[in-house]
Amino acid sequence: MDLDPFVGIRIFHEYLIANNILLLISFITGLISIIVAVYFYIYVSKQKVGTSKMKEISDAIKEGAIAFLKRQYTTLIVFVIILTVILYFFIGPETSIAYVIGSLCSAFAGFLGMDIALKANVRTANAARRGLKRAFPIGFYGGAVTGLAIVGLAVAGLSAVYYFFPDPEIVLGFSFGASLVALFAKAGGGIYTKTADIGADLVGKVEMNIPEDDPRNPAVIADNVGDNVGDVAGMGADLFDSYVASVVAAMIIGAVTMELGALLPLVFSAAGIIASVIGTFFVKAKKKGSPGKALNNGTYITCFLFALFSFLIVYLLALDMGIFYAIISGLVAGIVIGITSDYYTSIDRTPALRTAEVSKTGAAINILTGFSYGSISILPPLIGIGVATVISYHFAGIFGIAMSAIGMLSITGMIVSADAYGPIVDNAKGIAEQSRLGKKVIQIADKLDAAGNTAKAITKGFAIGAAGISVIALLVAYTEIVGIKTIDIMNPFVLAGALIGIAIPPLFSALTILGVGKNAFRMINEVRRQFKEIPGLIKGKTKPDYAKCVDIATKGALKELILPSVLAVIVPLIVGFVLGVEALGGFLAGSILSGLIFALFMANSGGLWDNAKKYIEEGNFGGKGSDAHKAAVIGDTVGDPFKDTAGPSLDTLLVVMSLVASLFAPLIVKYALIR
Amino acid sequence: MDLDPFVGIRIFHEYLIANNILLLISFITGLISIIVAVYFYIYVSKQKVGTSKMKEISDAIKEGAIAFLKRQYTTLIVFVIILTVILYFFIGPETSIAYVIGSLCSAFAGFLGMDIALKANVRTANAARRGLKRAFPIGFYGGAVTGLAIVGLAVAGLSAVYYFFPDPEIVLGFSFGASLVALFAKAGGGIYTKTADIGADLVGKVEMNIPEDDPRNPAVIADNVGDNVGDVAGMGADLFDSYVASVVAAMIIGAVTMELGALLPLVFSAAGIIASVIGTFFVKAKKKGSPGKALNNGTYITCFLFALFSFLIVYLLALDMGIFYAIISGLVAGIVIGITSDYYTSIDRTPALRTAEVSKTGAAINILTGFSYGSISILPPLIGIGVATVISYHFAGIFGIAMSAIGMLSITGMIVSADAYGPIVDNAKGIAEQSRLGKKVIQIADKLDAAGNTAKAITKGFAIGAAGISVIALLVAYTEIVGIKTIDIMNPFVLAGALIGIAIPPLFSALTILGVGKNAFRMINEVRRQFKEIPGLIKGKTKPDYAKCVDIATKGALKELILPSVLAVIVPLIVGFVLGVEALGGFLAGSILSGLIFALFMANSGGLWDNAKKYIEEGNFGGKGSDAHKAAVIGDTVGDPFKDTAGPSLDTLLVVMSLVASLFAPLIVKYALIR
Repeated sequence: MDLDPFVGIRIFHEYLIANNILLLISFITGLISIIVAVYFYIYVSKQKVGTSKMKEISDAIKEGAIAFLKRQYTTLIVFVIILTVILYFFIGPETSIAYVIGSLCSAFAGFLGMDIALKANVRTANAARRGLKRAFPIGFYGGAVTGLAIVGLAVAGLSAVYYFFPDPEIVLGFSFGASLVALFAKAGGGIYTKTADIGADLVGKVEMNIPEDDPRNPAVIADNVGDNVGDVAGMGADLFDSYVASVVAAMIIGAVTMELGALLPLVFSAAGIIASVIGTFFVKAKKKGSPGKALNNGTYITCFLFALFSFLIVYLLALDMGIFYAIISGLVAGIVIGITSDYYTSIDRTPALRTAEVSKTGAAINILTGFSYGSISILPPLIGIGVATVISYHFAGIFGIAMSAIGMLSITGMIVSADAYGPIVDNAKGIAEQSRLGKKVIQIADKLDAAGNTAKAITKGFAIGAAGISVIALLVAYTEIVGIKTIDIMNPFVLAGALIGIAIPPLFSALTILGVGKNAFRMINEVRRQFKEIPGLIKGKTKPDYAKCVDIATKGALKELILPSVLAVIVPLIVGFVLGVEALGGFLAGSILSGLIFALFMANSGGLWDNAKKYIEEGNFGGKGSDAHKAAVIGDTVGDPFKDTAGPSLDTLLVVMSLVASLFAPLIVKYALIR
Repeated sequence: MDLDPFVGIRIFHEYLIANNILLLISFITGLISIIVAVYFYIYVSKQKVGTSKMKEISDAIKEGAIAFLKRQYTTLIVFVIILTVILYFFIGPETSIAYVIGSLCSAFAGFLGMDIALKANVRTANAARRGLKRAFPIGFYGGAVTGLAIVGLAVAGLSAVYYFFPDPEIVLGFSFGASLVALFAKAGGGIYTKTADIGADLVGKVEMNIPEDDPRNPAVIADNVGDNVGDVAGMGADLFDSYVASVVAAMIIGAVTMELGALLPLVFSAAGIIASVIGTFFVKAKKKGSPGKALNNGTYITCFLFALFSFLIVYLLALDMGIFYAIISGLVAGIVIGITSDYYTSIDRTPALRTAEVSKTGAAINILTGFSYGSISILPPLIGIGVATVISYHFAGIFGIAMSAIGMLSITGMIVSADAYGPIVDNAKGIAEQSRLGKKVIQIADKLDAAGNTAKAITKGFAIGAAGISVIALLVAYTEIVGIKTIDIMNPFVLAGALIGIAIPPLFSALTILGVGKNAFRMINEVRRQFKEIPGLIKGKTKPDYAKCVDIATKGALKELILPSVLAVIVPLIVGFVLGVEALGGFLAGSILSGLIFALFMANSGGLWDNAKKYIEEGNFGGKGSDAHKAAVIGDTVGDPFKDTAGPSLDTLLVVMSLVASLFAPLIVKYALIR
């Protein structure tokens, strides 16, 4: 009986841990991802910019974007410094260092994503003059820079922080830094982009009847800038933060659950990175094939490879097969959520078609119908998350729940690559139109854009699902940290916490949407003023004052994002210190539940209003300019801040609040009024 | 030590229980309330109807309303029979009998409310010709018939059922009957009224530019019918069901908590009835005083009397003072919720004013702004409910939570009286306009109507708060029945249940709103057809085909309400039988949380869009006919089904689902797949 068949594996394990081999592997994988991103960056940069007109437009967009980012980061620095000091004194120096590193990584990921997008858009437009096959890779590799840089920075950063501070609770600081920057980027960028979009559309398209992206529109540059600061920089930071949060949550739960538990999340994430890197090389537009298919192929290959690698890891490290099942349940749920979300927004499905049809009876019914389908669309993803939770728990306990989050987010590198492709080609189309590159080029740009929209619908649903299961994992991590076994809704304090918690996501959404509304109000007045006061503008004889519009969007966005951001940090602290840790658990649970509802509702109804409008623009129910079209434009305008400002910020809000709770948990346990 | 100072009280208690004295008192109080209602009924009936033109219009409305109610009850009977059979065989004959009685009481309350409203509206209009002081009491006593009949029927019915079947779990059947009828009445009536309203407004007001309630509008009678079947019959049934549910929940919890526990909820409710009856006699419009003030005075007096009576009961029955505090915390929370809700909808406060202002930039920003303020308005009432829960628990344990629900709903008699007054005077105004009674009469009718709107805003918030705390009490009752101590959100099954639960209220809202949309689509086409095909209609030379519009609204409403109603009964059963009792607890908790969000959001945003429009109609931002007004009309049309169809039905949905869970709990415990 002295013979131990597992002795070999044990020695292997001890060797891995003692020498930090697993950590080293994760770190190197992160670096590889960054190196591939740099390779793509160089590839894109080498392409030609095109005509001088194109360069001019591109420079104007760049200038506006950089100006915005500069101001945003300046405001952000104040926040970061304040929080660093607070963390330093109240939580500990290590956490505050981790926090600063997380902030820097997140900010850098956002900056890089925007920088490459600004390079890639004009180059894609230029390459479109020589055909789709030339243009597509520039757009996609541009997106892949963001995708791979994000996951690379996340895993390399986490590995490094954990190497120096081998305590998952300190690593929380890294995640907090990443998330707070993401909240700024997402909410600020979201307010900016919709301010500009609504301003450009409502006056330009609706009142003056000029086409989208027309250079006569004073808000057109601001609109293009918005695509970059909102969709690229914001979205990049957003997925960066969900990704990091899910890994950290899993590390915390893993640390108390099993040997290697704190390291496994990093190892599996590394596997996801390798799968994503390989996946990106499989994205190739064939001569006749659609670019949308190419993007999806890349995603499927990444999923398959990740499943394979996960199996190998489980086998090699002699882990329980339950962990493998948990990971796969998350991965499958992510895909299912993406696909079902797609149904509710696709241009050729009942929800969008029906919404388009009722537009004939006016804007009110269009809005009511879109609102309703958006509300219905909440159910399938929630069932998906619920099933993944139950299955992963069944196979691997609470650690399983965390690992299913890792499974869902594993393919983030590929997802972000496909997603960041969208705004790049959208901008390329805009540049092509403003530079008057001709019908054929615009058609190609349109094709590229359509593929981007399809990819976006799927990845958006996916992102919400991933964020949902990440925050559930964070909630589990919170209970571990504060040492409570239950969050019992029958406990009146927990119930009170939950009642406050469910009100926060709608409050936050409302504040950002009101921000958009206020800012758009200013923008609309400015655009109207320019059309009225600048002689010859509508005939195209004079140039509008683009910079003024960019400036309004920038100032307004930063002003409007302060209050919601502060709320995200302060409200959990108030609930915790007044009502205690259990109530704070209820608060987090409540906010997660209502956050998921609102995020799904907003993303999907916004998407379907957009497509209902597009369907009418294709010539149905009276086509462009008809009453139905006018009604659908109103619906689309309502949906815009839903899907691009409030909805996506909610994921980040949930993560930030969960992290605040976990980080300050030790203080709350000690000093709460109700204990 | 043999001397027991409480021996006198004990003997008193035993006497009360042995001789069912408390039960008898409750029953008699219920009867008194019904008798006073009959007295008001006779008073109103005695008033004069007015001109033959008025009688004609009144008869047309009556005819349509009766036709609707007949069809609705015919459909309902099928449901009731099926459920009676199911309850008979699976739960027990007593429960099925209680169920039938509950259904009958609820249906009768709805019918009575509508009958008196149809009598009171034309008589109020007629009396308005002789001044406000003459007209006001007819409107108010008409409302009081509904208010007092409802609480009377509820308490007398509950007392009788409990006398024959002294088991609170059987009394649940009564509550279930009441709630399912209420769901039909509320959702069906809600779809009807908004179908007609939107049809009348969109074509009549917006397209044809004729005033509201103009007799040339083919949908005008359907619109008037809708006010009665939706606002009066539906709302009456709705508060009947919340009221009954809170009493039954408290009886169940009380039965296992303390001596007399099962009876106390009835006794305190009886006290509330007496307070309400006295309160109604204090509602008198002085010559110069505003009718709105008179309504509020009645409410405050009722609150004060109820507090006094409660104190006396606690003192006389030698109960713990904690129970008194619990009751008062509920009452105070109810008032606070009503007042804060009022802020978000009032015509002279920031939310409505700001929404009116942004209407200048178009419908989209109007909708976004209203949506946002509606979302913000969720927080204060939830804090109110949370605080009431914590305080009442602190003073009297879980029974305290149930008693705070009783406290909040105690003044239902008065609240419904003031609320039912609204649609009566609204209709009176309509009849005055259609009968062309002249400017002065219409001005008086307007004043009466404005008072109704203010009362309505407060009572609506109150109703949601009351329903919220009732379903929390029902949730506690559920855990008592199935014998679980916690609903732990960290249990993956509970979490999965909660995830499904939160998706149901938005799903239900969406189905009813889509129902309105579909039905309004038919109605709009019909109204357009009539204006086009009936010669001389727009000039007022020919009469439109009112009956056709009434018919479309009726058929459509009944068709569209089947699916959501069936869902309300079936989904909890599926969750329970598949995932088990704990998951079902999570499901209920989730549905309560998201139901509260949506109910508050919809009621308040709908109300504020309405008032933003009215503010513009008062001549601001361009006044009637301006672009801002058109935008505000779209917002109001979006808000209509929010505040009058989906929002109010949600309360009832939550109650129905909770009752289904509690009723079938014994079966679920036995046969669930996961136990």
